Amino acid sequence: MNGCTIPKATLGRLPGYLQYLRGLAETKRKNISATAIAKGLALGDVQVRKDLAAVSGAGKPKIGYETDQLILDIERHLGHDNLTNAVLVGAGKLGRALLDYDGFESFGVKIVAGFDCNHQIMQTGVQKRNILPIGSLTEYCKDNGVRLGIITVGQGSAQEVCDRMVASGITAIWNFAPCALRVPEGILLKQENLALSLAHLNNQINK
Amino acid sequence: MNGCTIPKATLGRLPGYLQYLRGLAETKRKNISATAIAKGLALGDVQVRKDLAAVSGAGKPKIGYETDQLILDIERHLGHDNLTNAVLVGAGKLGRALLDYDGFESFGVKIVAGFDCNHQIMQTGVQKRNILPIGSLTEYCKDNGVRLGIITVGQGSAQEVCDRMVASGITAIWNFAPCALRVPEGILLKQENLALSLAHLNNQINK
Repeated sequence: MNGCTIPKATLGRLPGYLQYLRGLAETKRKNISATAIAKGLALGDVQVRKDLAAVSGAGKPKIGYETDQLILDIERHLGHDNLTNAVLVGAGKLGRALLDYDGFESFGVKIVAGFDCNHQIMQTGVQKRNILPIGSLTEYCKDNGVRLGIITVGQGSAQEVCDRMVASGITAIWNFAPCALRVPEGILLKQENLALSLAHLNNQINK
Repeated sequence: MNGCTIPKATLGRLPGYLQYLRGLAETKRKNISATAIAKGLALGDVQVRKDLAAVSGAGKPKIGYETDQLILDIERHLGHDNLTNAVLVGAGKLGRALLDYDGFESFGVKIVAGFDCNHQIMQTGVQKRNILPIGSLTEYCKDNGVRLGIITVGQGSAQEVCDRMVASGITAIWNFAPCALRVPEGILLKQENLALSLAHLNNQINK
């Protein structure tokens, strides 16, 4: 990963650029301008220019970007060369949906294991990822250099899981439990509230 | 629902106020000040004052709010007196997780049915909500006054599902499929991208 944070909206468009550029690379097209990419993806010219400048500097006048280099730069910003290992705790329906989802790797994150205290869930398992007993979380995180944790347990045990994650060396937490968590300074916490997204949409319908 | 949109952050705090006030109502406490609520919930005084002013006007000097009236006002803003009926299409793991989640009603939305084209899923069903064949979507929506649709199908069929929803009278769509959808003017569309939330967190770790 490079040394700066790029805007979330830009980040969200990078996989689209990547897919488009890989298509071009197959046709052996060596150079591409921001304008051509904007046209190809039906995006605004200025937006594409800004996005590409953030990940790969300015293109050359009249020539644009080298396709191969631009692909590498985008991959680097998406963390493809250095996936962040993540674990998930709470293998209920939502947890298993996230464990089975393949789209995270194209954004630089690999969920390497799920944890749960329920033996029945562990035996059922999921197709793609192991579900391990919660007692082995700390050892697993330390052995595998895990820095990101996803919490999909219920409200009642979320703080306990959060504390365990911090004790296991995790520095960023994505919390789906509908409750506020306390974390020590220096730990990143992102609260996800799906009901709130829906409520906001509902509030807009009814205005 | 009342005639105005309140800020998303305020909306997110309303269920917390509601729970707190219901606890007070049980103790037969007739009046409560914004300051007392702020203390009880460890929130900022100014924030609570603003939130309550948005849903219930200003409290009376020295007295504050009538507890029962404040509860009614918050419930009204959360749409408790008038739940919006929603349907969900795509009963995979994520879809079933959302169908089974009870937290949406406290934000004014009731998922009344799920739809899928896979007969196996329909027979398995979920505990709490019916899964119906996709062919019956339009009739169901018209019969039940459904205005909100949630898309949890894959990328390949999301646009088709979206078009069906619009044709069925749905005016707001919450899309979890990782692709941009085209909707006619006047239709609200909220794109949910879980991978992007995670990517943003990852980008912050690595900066």
